[in-house]
Amino acid sequence: MVEPATATQAAAPAVPQLKDELDIVIPTIRNLDFLEMWRPFFQPYHLIIVQDGDPSKTIKVPDGFDYELYNRNDINRILGPKASCISFKDSACRCFGYLVSKKKYIFTIDDDCFVAKDPSGKAINALEQHIKNLLSPSTPFFFNTLYDPYREGADFVRGYPFSLREGVQTAVSHGLWLNIPDYDAPTQLVKPLERNARYVDAILTIPKGTLFPMCGMNLAFDRELIGPAMYFGLMGDGQPIGRYDDMWAGWCTKVICDHLGLGVKTGLPYIYHSKASNPFVNLRKEYKGIFWQEEIIPFFQQAVLPKDCTTVQKCYIELAKQVKDKLSKVDPYFDKLAEAMVTWIDAWDELNPTGAALPNGKAN
Amino acid sequence: MVEPATATQAAAPAVPQLKDELDIVIPTIRNLDFLEMWRPFFQPYHLIIVQDGDPSKTIKVPDGFDYELYNRNDINRILGPKASCISFKDSACRCFGYLVSKKKYIFTIDDDCFVAKDPSGKAINALEQHIKNLLSPSTPFFFNTLYDPYREGADFVRGYPFSLREGVQTAVSHGLWLNIPDYDAPTQLVKPLERNARYVDAILTIPKGTLFPMCGMNLAFDRELIGPAMYFGLMGDGQPIGRYDDMWAGWCTKVICDHLGLGVKTGLPYIYHSKASNPFVNLRKEYKGIFWQEEIIPFFQQAVLPKDCTTVQKCYIELAKQVKDKLSKVDPYFDKLAEAMVTWIDAWDELNPTGAALPNGKAN
Repeated sequence: MVEPATATQAAAPAVPQLKDELDIVIPTIRNLDFLEMWRPFFQPYHLIIVQDGDPSKTIKVPDGFDYELYNRNDINRILGPKASCISFKDSACRCFGYLVSKKKYIFTIDDDCFVAKDPSGKAINALEQHIKNLLSPSTPFFFNTLYDPYREGADFVRGYPFSLREGVQTAVSHGLWLNIPDYDAPTQLVKPLERNARYVDAILTIPKGTLFPMCGMNLAFDRELIGPAMYFGLMGDGQPIGRYDDMWAGWCTKVICDHLGLGVKTGLPYIYHSKASNPFVNLRKEYKGIFWQEEIIPFFQQAVLPKDCTTVQKCYIELAKQVKDKLSKVDPYFDKLAEAMVTWIDAWDELNPTGAALPNGKAN
Repeated sequence: MVEPATATQAAAPAVPQLKDELDIVIPTIRNLDFLEMWRPFFQPYHLIIVQDGDPSKTIKVPDGFDYELYNRNDINRILGPKASCISFKDSACRCFGYLVSKKKYIFTIDDDCFVAKDPSGKAINALEQHIKNLLSPSTPFFFNTLYDPYREGADFVRGYPFSLREGVQTAVSHGLWLNIPDYDAPTQLVKPLERNARYVDAILTIPKGTLFPMCGMNLAFDRELIGPAMYFGLMGDGQPIGRYDDMWAGWCTKVICDHLGLGVKTGLPYIYHSKASNPFVNLRKEYKGIFWQEEIIPFFQQAVLPKDCTTVQKCYIELAKQVKDKLSKVDPYFDKLAEAMVTWIDAWDELNPTGAALPNGKAN
């Protein structure tokens, strides 16, 4: 049986890293009591809360947290007609938080995710591990069999080319989940009791050219390096699909990271995912995605970005064009999505004017 | 501090799997006392011992093991002029064992590798885990963030295409090492005291298109699927290079597995690697390889095999041709190596006549 951690206070670091350079983005429809457990780890940081659903509802945030909160009315007011690119009644709305952040790094977490324990019983400071992942290089061009070569007690193994040992900048850190694994509706239905109790003590770079299913539940990224690619698509209210928001962002992000020579890591840290969502509801949301992903994934596997796409924005606009050209035949939804991708970049550039024209997202 | 296991008897399975379908290949220059520790796990299996160095020396094998032993005189007698492709005074000679085996599977291990313990203190039956790895599919086309989806307690995560969940046949299982990591001479020199104490409880498929440094110390493979690619090259006596035997086999094998749609797994099982080899001696052996690998790896990353290469043998002959064409300019050694690759396939087909003409190595 997997249990969440209880005493988290003792595990908090004396000096929180990147305190003024990282925002924590939380999409929610309820009071944020889950923050109590994260208090020792999150309290030093600024929170951006994106309230989904009814804007007249009041979301309670535990005392002592520094936050800004946006509901649908705020999103409409800030973005005007461009607000159409931000999903409603779906956790995809979280990407609005990425847009309005002014920080270099983002950590995003779901409000049903609690502090996990490592095998020694110690509470895991997920944010601290994500920061470590983002601040150390990635190795997308050759696989290291002892996993992350930059971790203490590890290195590059025999046969690893020396010219590649400097690595590349890490753009994304994808964390995992103990207890309730991130399964699709069919797997949830078939294995209702399966829990993830395996703590795999590894971080690894997802090799160049390989796609992966990026989950938005426990995710950090370098907003300056890759932010404009982290669009969570059109999901939920008025859309034919849900629960593919993070997948869409992951596919786009990985293709663009590969093109720009940036790294994506997965593995540690774990969070404790407390509650399985309803598989019947999920099946209704995922239904079309289950078919569509069979065509979307080959599309992304074959996508090539031209050399003159030297910024994330240019890459993303080019991808939007390719989505329109090649996926519209799958469903008219992709026409709308391609247009929303362009709107998203317009909104990004409007709210982040200084970074818009610099190559490789290396703004400041 | 990492320690090897002591009580291994209790961990032995009642029914050894693939008992009549797997050979254990051990290259050695000394008495095989290390087998005592492995007795509960290895005794049911047949051993092929390849004696390196002075053939007049007698290698003692502990009582009760079923084995055949080949020294240099045997290799010369059996292969005649083709014996030139088998290295001397280098553990690369182990691939002679793959050639003369009549079994479907091979497990090869170095004689300084002992039984490791998992974090619960239980002795690890490395062979049993390799067999599990080989008998379950691989997933080279898309990355699963919870690692091997076929393990108990794991599955494919949300967003993994359903059409890819059948996986492909696994050709190679690459195991890891606790205690002495498999470092090159420069890293050994810089970190003489580094020990690998991190037990990572994972098995994963190395994605299609990604190369990795394959270590021959703790390795299993399906001889029928990929055997002819497991040539360990020209190393040691009379050659300008050593300690790249397994690397060479790994690069060739991965390119061919990718071409034929076969899987390569890495991760569990761990063995306990007892003794660091001399870094000064290693540096002398590796010296040229450190330069050459900077050109060899791009060569293999770009290698494309034509569609009519439908067997491992055809793929390997084609690779030999490309090695001659593209790597000879690096050093005349690669001319010799390319010729030895062709000789190896001749020897393979001579000793394994039935499997020679069948597609994808699916002989028998």
